[in-house]
Amino acid sequence: MLFDFTDATGAQLRHACRDGACPGPTPGFARGFVQANLVILPRDWAFEFLLFCQRNPKPCPVLDVTEPGDPEAKLVAPGSDLRTDLPSYRVWKNGELVEEPHSVGHVWRADLVSFVIGCSFTFENALLAAGVPVRHIEQNRNVPMFDTNIPCQPAGRFSGHLVVSMRPLLPRLAVKATQICCRFPLAHGAPVHVGNPDAIGIRDINKPDYGDAVDVRTGELPVFWACGVTPQAALARAKPPFAITHKPGHMFLTDLKDTDLEGE
Amino acid sequence: MLFDFTDATGAQLRHACRDGACPGPTPGFARGFVQANLVILPRDWAFEFLLFCQRNPKPCPVLDVTEPGDPEAKLVAPGSDLRTDLPSYRVWKNGELVEEPHSVGHVWRADLVSFVIGCSFTFENALLAAGVPVRHIEQNRNVPMFDTNIPCQPAGRFSGHLVVSMRPLLPRLAVKATQICCRFPLAHGAPVHVGNPDAIGIRDINKPDYGDAVDVRTGELPVFWACGVTPQAALARAKPPFAITHKPGHMFLTDLKDTDLEGE
Repeated sequence: MLFDFTDATGAQLRHACRDGACPGPTPGFARGFVQANLVILPRDWAFEFLLFCQRNPKPCPVLDVTEPGDPEAKLVAPGSDLRTDLPSYRVWKNGELVEEPHSVGHVWRADLVSFVIGCSFTFENALLAAGVPVRHIEQNRNVPMFDTNIPCQPAGRFSGHLVVSMRPLLPRLAVKATQICCRFPLAHGAPVHVGNPDAIGIRDINKPDYGDAVDVRTGELPVFWACGVTPQAALARAKPPFAITHKPGHMFLTDLKDTDLEGE
Repeated sequence: MLFDFTDATGAQLRHACRDGACPGPTPGFARGFVQANLVILPRDWAFEFLLFCQRNPKPCPVLDVTEPGDPEAKLVAPGSDLRTDLPSYRVWKNGELVEEPHSVGHVWRADLVSFVIGCSFTFENALLAAGVPVRHIEQNRNVPMFDTNIPCQPAGRFSGHLVVSMRPLLPRLAVKATQICCRFPLAHGAPVHVGNPDAIGIRDINKPDYGDAVDVRTGELPVFWACGVTPQAALARAKPPFAITHKPGHMFLTDLKDTDLEGE
């Protein structure tokens, strides 16, 4: 990391990205500010994607949706420019990743609608603050994520299975984590499964489909949360002619505080 | 009421409507089943309306959205036919009410998208079950509803102010009602205001803009909830060329139980 962005505000981090001064990934940056997943689609795919999110709110908690062509996330980050304010992007054509640029002004179109979607970093901060350890942070790894056999509710051309993230916890801390995460429905909310990985179609807990494996220690239960990779998996399957997302781990920093997402 | 529909299921009530045997209004019908508001719009207005609901989840909690042209609410009422299964409808042209038919097959179009939206009857049942009295039910009146000065988040062509419903409660019961309603974010959730009506732009608590006035007794606070009339007000303002809604009080009965809406 070029600078220590831990104590930056969301706006400061966005400006650093805009100036090319923030390489990402962003975990731990602008601590306390809500980080978000980003999906950008042409207007004629926007209704079906919003409907997919509405039908699958645990993996796809929508925080903001822009007007077509407008690169500003007016509700969650006034003054932002979604074309420049993330450290890294992914550009997709027909479901294939074609480019990982640091800005997307060169491929921007007047018909693009941007979806800002809640992220587990919000509840991880709340877990840490409550004394619930987060293994992949302790081990300085990316969170382990798995494909499951839990079907998403399809919407138009979007469909697929739920992707989950996993954090191992002692049973009493699994209960405490559930209580805490219930307060954050816009950051994936309560876990979707606790215990036996096989019950949701996960064959090997030590071989995540995305991210890194972490230690699951004696007496701990694997606890599974709906994951923001789910919409990207649905996108890769739907194969829209054009799409932009954030590069995993290189999130959009909003002006919202984690505590703003508490409650209904 | 021609028959006693209190103990009917949601499906039985829909079939009675389909057979022309249920005149409505529906309060008290199929008790325990979720009743819902209905908004039907052409496909090219659907994204902006869904976005309006997403940005204003307290007045517009979306329970189901159909595929264009499909009259079945597959998620909340499999086998339903939204063209026939409500007791009464309103047909709108350019924001003007033009007809109040008992079915809408004669105006149905292949491009219509239907939005099924949560309703306060769900939390009223929970209040009554918990011993919290509901004045307009006691007084056998419609719930009093008021326009406020609280702006909705606009979305495309949809905008307007929040409409609220009001129930007078003793302070300790206002607290209890808040605790109960928090559990039902898909049925308008926690109150949006308690006490001084003037603070949210309501001049006379005895003159509701919709529904009936109810007694507010000594020591009681007026308690205000986001109301499902809000999207209809936004619709009247946006003036889409064509729209269908339920007739107020003549709701769509789903297969969901009130308890299904508890939680996140």
